[in-house]
Amino acid sequence: MAQEVVLGIDIGGTFTKIGLVDQSGEIHFEDEISTRGYETIEEYIAALHAHVMKSLDSLETTFLLLGIGVGAPNGNYYEGTIEHAPNLAWKGKIEFVKLMEHQFHLPVVVTNDANAAALGEMLFGDAKDLKNFVMITLGTGLGSGLVVNGDVVYGHDGFAGDLGHVLVYDHGRQCGCGKKGCLEAYVSATGIKRTAYELLAESNEDSEVRKIPFSKLKPKMLTAMAEKGDPVAIKAFDRTGYLLGRALADTVAHISPARIFLFGGLAKAGKWIIDPSKRSMEDHLMTIYQNKIDIVPSALLSKNIAVLGAAALIWKKLNSQ
Amino acid sequence: MAQEVVLGIDIGGTFTKIGLVDQSGEIHFEDEISTRGYETIEEYIAALHAHVMKSLDSLETTFLLLGIGVGAPNGNYYEGTIEHAPNLAWKGKIEFVKLMEHQFHLPVVVTNDANAAALGEMLFGDAKDLKNFVMITLGTGLGSGLVVNGDVVYGHDGFAGDLGHVLVYDHGRQCGCGKKGCLEAYVSATGIKRTAYELLAESNEDSEVRKIPFSKLKPKMLTAMAEKGDPVAIKAFDRTGYLLGRALADTVAHISPARIFLFGGLAKAGKWIIDPSKRSMEDHLMTIYQNKIDIVPSALLSKNIAVLGAAALIWKKLNSQ
Repeated sequence: MAQEVVLGIDIGGTFTKIGLVDQSGEIHFEDEISTRGYETIEEYIAALHAHVMKSLDSLETTFLLLGIGVGAPNGNYYEGTIEHAPNLAWKGKIEFVKLMEHQFHLPVVVTNDANAAALGEMLFGDAKDLKNFVMITLGTGLGSGLVVNGDVVYGHDGFAGDLGHVLVYDHGRQCGCGKKGCLEAYVSATGIKRTAYELLAESNEDSEVRKIPFSKLKPKMLTAMAEKGDPVAIKAFDRTGYLLGRALADTVAHISPARIFLFGGLAKAGKWIIDPSKRSMEDHLMTIYQNKIDIVPSALLSKNIAVLGAAALIWKKLNSQ
Repeated sequence: MAQEVVLGIDIGGTFTKIGLVDQSGEIHFEDEISTRGYETIEEYIAALHAHVMKSLDSLETTFLLLGIGVGAPNGNYYEGTIEHAPNLAWKGKIEFVKLMEHQFHLPVVVTNDANAAALGEMLFGDAKDLKNFVMITLGTGLGSGLVVNGDVVYGHDGFAGDLGHVLVYDHGRQCGCGKKGCLEAYVSATGIKRTAYELLAESNEDSEVRKIPFSKLKPKMLTAMAEKGDPVAIKAFDRTGYLLGRALADTVAHISPARIFLFGGLAKAGKWIIDPSKRSMEDHLMTIYQNKIDIVPSALLSKNIAVLGAAALIWKKLNSQ
């Protein structure tokens, strides 16, 4: 029997991940192609199309493709565009949905990766019963998807939910966005690295971090060091969690979510990042919000949430028609 | 002919304002009673009821009362309660809607005053065409109502939208809520006063503020001084606007509103507060949000927005049935 699926696509700076996802969230097939090496967006989409069609032909099961969901940096749900994405080769405002529909002849929806992750958690993860929650993705940067009254918040222009760029310190660290003092410059894979080296400068404490060049340090190495009691690694998590919790308290004051999910490499540090975040959030919350809101790892932490989320996006659209 | 109206009620710490409001937002009758002097909430509600009935009987027009909307500090839309309101005599969690419906035998809805103001702007003001906007009320404190996808954001527990208590400075000024460094300790009628006296301490500049005791200074006096070029008054507005704009940039990163409305005594300062807020907001926004979002005074600035907003709340509910 033929299996109905959608195509979930996660466009990253280096790789584009794809997956065939059924309505229950099962990934029947996954693969990736390079995002780089195409001069124009049209060439990239043609290559993506060819790859998907070849894969579909080669699979034993007959898959019926109902639509395509895409998570992409600066993906705009309303406009169907990808706008000024810092990590992609194609500059300006790309009419992505239009080009994709022209190539695939299927309904296509796009949003940013963190919004897709929030939808993934809502359809296939631990947010199935939640109408108000927050998804924080801790990758190279910090992304966020906000869900209010059961819907992802896109805002007036489709760009809502960009908590990576709320301010934590006036005149603080230089951020990739051009501003200074943004949350993502402190709380992200690169943010915690910067903090670890800041700590090396501040104290004379012995630490494994002193033996590793900045360019080689990864969050999972800090987790391993923290497990062994490395004081710099532990303090780096504490300081990172302090700022994440402080920022999340402000987010709670905005939308009062039932739960906050963490996803991404840094979220895999588990208690090392979650405990100080939770402590700091509670310390910064008003009484009426205290002791109600959990910070938890995403249920999809070990899965490809970006592909699942992109698939959730199009499933949600197909089911609401 | 009889005129259909709802009763809008704005419960303040000192006075309770009431108004009979038709569906177009016209206030046909307004009045106030004291909020103080009643030992129990039941006595207060009985007095309120008696006053409304007497007023209705005394009016020439026959008014048909369809429902009651209430704006109250810490009013919880979901629960129909007023919970731990700092300015009211009745402590704990009050089953306000239940008690009101028992007394009036009419449908009653409650929310906090800033959410009511947002609804007032949406039904009767300049937000009629807007699905995503922010209302900031600058009174003794700072309240906020957030509108996303055409609905006020109540959040998981009914307490969303409390921007008065987002953090502006770690270990900053003591706030009335018990925390330190909250926005409302800087941006509000009392916040700008504190800033004005901080400025007196910082510099030796001549200023009218030096002649006025703290307890007597009002925002409108600062506006009058600013108009005459008083450097301390102007700097107090600049510093207040700087922090408001900085906080609003973070709010934009959360929900990306089309417009931001200001209401309340401090909002009447007009350009003195709006211009520095706008400058600072733009300076703190990411490029994708810049030059799209206006900060404007509420269209209802000279009217009783709290009563109109409370009326809007119940009109919205009646019309959605």
